[in-house]
Amino acid sequence: MTHPVSGIRLGVAQAGVKTANRDDLVLINLSPDTRTAAVFTQNAFRAAPVVVAERHLRANAGRASWLMINTGNANAGNGVQGISSAESCCQAAAALTKAPVDQILPFSTGVIGEALPTDAIIAALPQAIGDLSATNWSRAASAILTTDTRPKLRSKQFELEGRSCTITGMSKGAGMICPNLATMLAFVGTDARIDAATLDSLLKKAVADSFNRITIDGDTSTNDAVTLSATGDSGISIATDGSHYDRFAEALTDLMIDLAHDIVRDGEGASKFVEVNVSGGRTAAECDEVARTIAHSPLVKTALFASDPNWGRILAAIGRTGLDNFDTDSVVLRINGIVIAEEGARAASYREEKGVEAMQPRDLKVEVMLNRGSASATVWTTDLSYDYVKINAEYRT
Amino acid sequence: MTHPVSGIRLGVAQAGVKTANRDDLVLINLSPDTRTAAVFTQNAFRAAPVVVAERHLRANAGRASWLMINTGNANAGNGVQGISSAESCCQAAAALTKAPVDQILPFSTGVIGEALPTDAIIAALPQAIGDLSATNWSRAASAILTTDTRPKLRSKQFELEGRSCTITGMSKGAGMICPNLATMLAFVGTDARIDAATLDSLLKKAVADSFNRITIDGDTSTNDAVTLSATGDSGISIATDGSHYDRFAEALTDLMIDLAHDIVRDGEGASKFVEVNVSGGRTAAECDEVARTIAHSPLVKTALFASDPNWGRILAAIGRTGLDNFDTDSVVLRINGIVIAEEGARAASYREEKGVEAMQPRDLKVEVMLNRGSASATVWTTDLSYDYVKINAEYRT
Repeated sequence: MTHPVSGIRLGVAQAGVKTANRDDLVLINLSPDTRTAAVFTQNAFRAAPVVVAERHLRANAGRASWLMINTGNANAGNGVQGISSAESCCQAAAALTKAPVDQILPFSTGVIGEALPTDAIIAALPQAIGDLSATNWSRAASAILTTDTRPKLRSKQFELEGRSCTITGMSKGAGMICPNLATMLAFVGTDARIDAATLDSLLKKAVADSFNRITIDGDTSTNDAVTLSATGDSGISIATDGSHYDRFAEALTDLMIDLAHDIVRDGEGASKFVEVNVSGGRTAAECDEVARTIAHSPLVKTALFASDPNWGRILAAIGRTGLDNFDTDSVVLRINGIVIAEEGARAASYREEKGVEAMQPRDLKVEVMLNRGSASATVWTTDLSYDYVKINAEYRT
Repeated sequence: MTHPVSGIRLGVAQAGVKTANRDDLVLINLSPDTRTAAVFTQNAFRAAPVVVAERHLRANAGRASWLMINTGNANAGNGVQGISSAESCCQAAAALTKAPVDQILPFSTGVIGEALPTDAIIAALPQAIGDLSATNWSRAASAILTTDTRPKLRSKQFELEGRSCTITGMSKGAGMICPNLATMLAFVGTDARIDAATLDSLLKKAVADSFNRITIDGDTSTNDAVTLSATGDSGISIATDGSHYDRFAEALTDLMIDLAHDIVRDGEGASKFVEVNVSGGRTAAECDEVARTIAHSPLVKTALFASDPNWGRILAAIGRTGLDNFDTDSVVLRINGIVIAEEGARAASYREEKGVEAMQPRDLKVEVMLNRGSASATVWTTDLSYDYVKINAEYRT
């Protein structure tokens, strides 16, 4: 069940950005007291809307009135022309809504390197404005998709001191997924009242534990962006020294993990949802490196696709991460609870048929225990299938 | 044409390591004055034969009498049992040949994590010894293959001061290819006379410019090894301060580049041979990082498979390498000579049909000019195809 967020309305339109007769433009209107925080891609090639949205958000210290999102065209790799295309759309939206132009944040996703069809987008703005409603989350979640096969929408409602607090968000993304500080597109709203600095730290922490822990293909997009908007309409205040902070932060992180998992489950060609958990490392950074090396290995990913407990490929991936003074004999490897390898070799208790059985479910948990410290890290990923190749050989991002 | 190397004889046998009725065991006999240098995988999980071969080579300062190679089983991930399996085979070969056991260097390739069938290998040793001949390079090159579709054999003969000098070598490998200081299996012989220290530096330099510059899937194997054996039979001496050094080093490097390219061309599921050249960087290391990020990107590799000039994916890969103070507007991208992107966007002169045409050949050259320095780096790689997934989902390495 999707709970509307008081103070947030969404409007959808068909602009014909890439294909006709599909919803491809979303406007999100934020009530005047709303504060918005955002994180953006760390790719050096930043798409024009990322540059413009960040600039606008900074100019207003988190006050934004409108989020404007199109699919079908990423407005990336378009040089200075891309910046002026994004600004033209913001100016047109400002003129129609009477909002200051720098309170409009543009977001784009889709094909890289083709000029944004600004005329088509501008012409469809009135349709999106006319469509504004607090109950449009589901239609909006569908309108922002690219190669995704299904919308990603999550909503939570919980009580804080007898008042109801809502967090609702949507995300999109199925390929070019290896976020670094921000990821794909995700837009989350809440009716809590949160100041800009607190909002920013809540968002960064939640993203670090959710979107930044997923990877489909190791490719960081040029357009990644996650926003968190707090309208304050519930009357509940969240502050770093307040009693609700931890509870709210946990709910927010849980919701973002759900949205991030939705992206992995809908990963291009994915037939498996794989959690890679590395524990017993000296630092979280080395655990993270081992987890990502496993998650990015094409040999491991094709074995996962084949439901093949090919632990040799996993050990080989661990071995090439280059950990200092690494004793391979201390590693223990488990898949879905079955101990497969230890002391540098197949576990004495291991039987191939148990491994094959453990690999059958769609959801797999690969656990690596390094046994040289107490740090740990988790990433979520997919397998590598025929369909991944098909989708990416045929689709022009 | 494959030139025999005086002082080197090869014998082939059918041991039935993994499948019956195929050549899967090779013995290479080196004449008494031969010196051998080798480089081995940098993967922390080193296969047992790598550990044993390195130990034996060190114990004798480069004097080895026999190279013993089996395919079908990598003897990797077998813990202490793997070491004793490799040593058992060496002991049996030593008893048959009257050579000291530590002058026998074992090499294995094939399935990881299954016990080496030592009895089968030992039983086939007499057959391999009985087969020894200087003209067996071609049969030996076939006998060491795994998922390779064809043998990789290269030979050069050139004159140095009126005498003929020969270098002949073979390699194998088609997957788990991302060498780090050493790679897959390759065995190179020459009839030049070269002392151990010079041989070592010649080998390291040639490997750095050849095998260490190829990558198929970014996965470094547990079994990589390259050897260079110099018999001295030609009477030509190669020394660092000698007049032939540069000429010999160049011939050796060229031969190793040819063998490395053979591996890429036979890469699992490969339909393209791709040179990625990055120039104008501040350091060779940053050029190398950019080249490898492009070469490992599944999105770039699937676009190459589709012959799609999808420069947005290449720019996105460059952008995520995290270069310091990187000005994306200074990048120029060419594919097979066609300027596709510059100043952060599609080149004004670029037309999509020119890009599509440039992508049709099997051999592609992707050139990235960073325009911020004078360093450069090249790697060679393949595309990512349906067949890559098929081979790796069905084959148990």
